[in-house]
Amino acid sequence: MNDSKHRAEQASEPDGASPWAARRRRPRDHAVKRDAVIRAAARAFNERGFHHASLDDIAAGLGVTKPTIYYYVASKEQLLFECFLAGLSPIREALREADRRGGSARERLGTVIRGYAAAIASEYGWCMVRAHDQDLGLGMRRQINALKSEIDQGIRGLIRAGIDDGSISPCDPKLTAFAMAGALNWIAHWFRADQAMTASEVADAFVAFFERGLQPRTRAQSASRTVRGA
Amino acid sequence: MNDSKHRAEQASEPDGASPWAARRRRPRDHAVKRDAVIRAAARAFNERGFHHASLDDIAAGLGVTKPTIYYYVASKEQLLFECFLAGLSPIREALREADRRGGSARERLGTVIRGYAAAIASEYGWCMVRAHDQDLGLGMRRQINALKSEIDQGIRGLIRAGIDDGSISPCDPKLTAFAMAGALNWIAHWFRADQAMTASEVADAFVAFFERGLQPRTRAQSASRTVRGA
Repeated sequence: MNDSKHRAEQASEPDGASPWAARRRRPRDHAVKRDAVIRAAARAFNERGFHHASLDDIAAGLGVTKPTIYYYVASKEQLLFECFLAGLSPIREALREADRRGGSARERLGTVIRGYAAAIASEYGWCMVRAHDQDLGLGMRRQINALKSEIDQGIRGLIRAGIDDGSISPCDPKLTAFAMAGALNWIAHWFRADQAMTASEVADAFVAFFERGLQPRTRAQSASRTVRGA
Repeated sequence: MNDSKHRAEQASEPDGASPWAARRRRPRDHAVKRDAVIRAAARAFNERGFHHASLDDIAAGLGVTKPTIYYYVASKEQLLFECFLAGLSPIREALREADRRGGSARERLGTVIRGYAAAIASEYGWCMVRAHDQDLGLGMRRQINALKSEIDQGIRGLIRAGIDDGSISPCDPKLTAFAMAGALNWIAHWFRADQAMTASEVADAFVAFFERGLQPRTRAQSASRTVRGA
């Protein structure tokens, strides 16, 4: 089920999945290798679950030994923490990008939804949605919860701004944010199983559904859409 | 966090949570006591997770001993299976009720969404969404997956029927079903934390969001809604 995902990963690393593999190239820097360790951990957690994946598995997947892993992170718990961060960061970045781009609040929300969908469809999606933050110590858990809350509040704020600027229909911003986040988070449960669509196509379909809903606008528009779709 | 939920349960059992508690009343039947065991298991799994909840905990919660539990179910695994069944049954019932009621496919879908939201907001929601079906043996897992698939196909069928009868805007039925199921399933993650709304109010808000989406219908309608909401 994860094969095509792995192939996609490897395709973005032209010389294979592990930056340790090709000794002849100039040494990559610490950050690149650390990223590779976190990405390998995300894959292992995804495939075997946090409790069943071992640091030995993660090291073996990279062709290195466990002490090499400890050179980059202090513990398996820290690896999970870094996976959460890696998944949440692009969503926070999408919130900032939406602010920079401007436009109506509904358009800015579309930018956030696309970034959110991409993050959940990434290898970090499983950790963000299915891992239990109870597996993290209190300090790390608080940091993750603060980031999640920042994202939730950012989405609610955009919904409120949309109600104010007239681009979003009056609604309960909190419940609407929960509904959208739920639909997006659930992508982590099914996305790998569905090889027919890219993450970006899923995001576009979700944005369309969130914006328009199920109900046809008018009979005339609905008829013209049906004809175009036929 | 679960206190108010427990109080609500007890309120529907006028003499306390356990049908074993009041010895003076006439003996309740086997099915009622079996239901109480399954409900107590759902609460224990919800609070402590499937792996950390023991049959002793569940028995203690009912004021009985572990052998009494074994009189009703064969194993902890079977308890989890029964929790899945108890959560999925009302959604299947909502699909049948929608068929009986008739109306447009979008209206029938609304009936299913309300039943789905109520099931996820019930004490069985956690099991349906957060428990891993890998904790079930292959036979039980296949049964649960068949029921989940029946529900998914029922929802997709209603979306297709709505596109055909003109009550639902043309869309990808599979992705739209995934988006709605994700939003609904996610209720299990946050519902207990939000004591401000009933499950039925959440369901109504979700149906409204799914039907209309974010975008105001027309400027005139949007303005009138804003004024009414002010």
